[in-house]
Amino acid sequence: MRAYNFCAGPAALPTAVLEKAQAEMLDWQGKGLSIMEMSHRSADYVAVAEKAEADLRKLMNIPENYKVLFLQGGASLQFSAIPLNLLGKNSKADYIHTGIWSEKALKEAQRYGDINVVEAGTTVDGKLAIKDQSEWNLSADAAYVHYADNETIGGIQFANIPETDKPLVADLSSSILSAPIDVSKFGLIYAGAQKNIGPAGLTIVIVRDDLLDQAKAEIPSILKYSAQAKNDSMVNTPSTYAWYLSGLVFEWLLAQGGVEAIHKANLAKAELLYSYIDSSDFYANPIAKENRSIMNVPFTLAKPELEKQFLKEAEEHHLLNLAGHRSVGGMRASIYNAVPLEGVQALVDFMDDFAKRNA
Amino acid sequence: MRAYNFCAGPAALPTAVLEKAQAEMLDWQGKGLSIMEMSHRSADYVAVAEKAEADLRKLMNIPENYKVLFLQGGASLQFSAIPLNLLGKNSKADYIHTGIWSEKALKEAQRYGDINVVEAGTTVDGKLAIKDQSEWNLSADAAYVHYADNETIGGIQFANIPETDKPLVADLSSSILSAPIDVSKFGLIYAGAQKNIGPAGLTIVIVRDDLLDQAKAEIPSILKYSAQAKNDSMVNTPSTYAWYLSGLVFEWLLAQGGVEAIHKANLAKAELLYSYIDSSDFYANPIAKENRSIMNVPFTLAKPELEKQFLKEAEEHHLLNLAGHRSVGGMRASIYNAVPLEGVQALVDFMDDFAKRNA
Repeated sequence: MRAYNFCAGPAALPTAVLEKAQAEMLDWQGKGLSIMEMSHRSADYVAVAEKAEADLRKLMNIPENYKVLFLQGGASLQFSAIPLNLLGKNSKADYIHTGIWSEKALKEAQRYGDINVVEAGTTVDGKLAIKDQSEWNLSADAAYVHYADNETIGGIQFANIPETDKPLVADLSSSILSAPIDVSKFGLIYAGAQKNIGPAGLTIVIVRDDLLDQAKAEIPSILKYSAQAKNDSMVNTPSTYAWYLSGLVFEWLLAQGGVEAIHKANLAKAELLYSYIDSSDFYANPIAKENRSIMNVPFTLAKPELEKQFLKEAEEHHLLNLAGHRSVGGMRASIYNAVPLEGVQALVDFMDDFAKRNA
Repeated sequence: MRAYNFCAGPAALPTAVLEKAQAEMLDWQGKGLSIMEMSHRSADYVAVAEKAEADLRKLMNIPENYKVLFLQGGASLQFSAIPLNLLGKNSKADYIHTGIWSEKALKEAQRYGDINVVEAGTTVDGKLAIKDQSEWNLSADAAYVHYADNETIGGIQFANIPETDKPLVADLSSSILSAPIDVSKFGLIYAGAQKNIGPAGLTIVIVRDDLLDQAKAEIPSILKYSAQAKNDSMVNTPSTYAWYLSGLVFEWLLAQGGVEAIHKANLAKAELLYSYIDSSDFYANPIAKENRSIMNVPFTLAKPELEKQFLKEAEEHHLLNLAGHRSVGGMRASIYNAVPLEGVQALVDFMDDFAKRNA
């Protein structure tokens, strides 16, 4: 049986998607071979790749003056690719620091340029929050402004898209496709696939046309946005199976009613879990309400010595991967698109039972 | 039904491997989730990853002073990573030029250093061949010597490993695991997975310990061999499903009797196909015998106007992907490890029938 999987990533995929992939694993559409055994330049595969892009464009309402790239290397390789493509020599960028992932991005960028770090973390009534933009020391001459919309480890998320007249660059790895966003507000959006898109090994980059040709120095061809755009993300062999699986996820999302519908479902899941935590004396979430992530819900137990017991019993109830990130400890429930409301209800029921037995 | 798939890459995988992956797609080992839905840091996944590495070490008899890395980005990203890691400022490398892939590697390397291009192509009795090493103009002061063992597009392969006292760097993308090699002769071996290893989206790098810390400048962390080695190829989330599938391929290879056994099978397949081509007036292979690839067999028809007809009829006989690379035309049969002797026999039977009907 399939368990409820709260892993932060690589994360749960829709069961219907895995069933479809399973059914056509050995013989895709009666062609006598697996989709992963096909040339990426074959007509059949190119049609799959193009359909995935078209569906993603539909789901996110991506304007025509943006390219959508299906790349390898993870968001972490984009931490380098972004400054390498967008920063000129001695030029500056603003990086908003709100947690571990935005810190990784800015540390990598510091190898290549003058990075203005905007410390945006604060506390409100003892809870972690993101400072109002009026308190940020943004540069007048930044080539771009970078932020991570949702900090997967901390469970802290921006309530709004930052306002800037500079190109806005966003790491949406753990929030893409969870809620509608206005792509036209961004210069570049990137996301590792392994949360809301598909399996690990694929990275989506959505980049406005005017930012494609900014690379000033010699950078690896594979990292060059202009080269990848010109070659439909096939400067070399892409991660074909991950791309195909992502296409199946996009089809599934469209069948659910698209991003608006999944957003409603995500809000219901988050509301259920947060309101239970808030109502409990046994559990606590450290984030101010306005900045709570709707995807990653960290929580602590009043008796931290029971954490192992909690995880063990949860697993017996088919509730998997609830341990917090190794760097912060505690618990974390990642409730991405593929985690159904029933899964969150089962988690809340278990948490409540566990709390009563251990109060 | 499964066809015989002669695709140059992404290429055929063993049917038994796909069947195993299919069976555990939704529920890996009764854990209630797919292997691709697991954290790469979970004990279950790490065991899968480590087993794959151990099996590859066994298959290739990799000495202990070599690290094995499971990376993303394809061999083409290694075209940049190799000079970025191994070349100091103003330092030199020798690149042996034998075809399209070794040319791509050297063109990328030219962005980062002083590249001495060794033109090693020649003709012998009108057939393409690789010059004897005594005719190469190798540098006295090269940081390393690079070559592509097997040119996937041209179907030309080195008869021997080049001799050098410099670190030898080899692109084995289309020949790795096809025949035994002495890893200790190399400084670094790299290979895209999508021929003899697994699906696209994974790249294997086997690198001698003393070459790990050569990077002189700031290079992306994801490309830095020392960082990847220190983190067991998990500086960030690796291509977990491709890694798992490659592990299944390694298990399959061990069950076949390892690389020695598959090499015998490969020689039999190549002998069958080449000797048929040589015996025919209708087909021709352009490569000198000593340098014929045992993996990629290009051939031409005496009547090139029949190529489309040949491909159409081959497909009707469940013999797929025999068109040559778009840059060279003609035909090409890639007969990697996963293509069985019966597949090559079926191809030869079809070729013979086609030739008789169209002589």
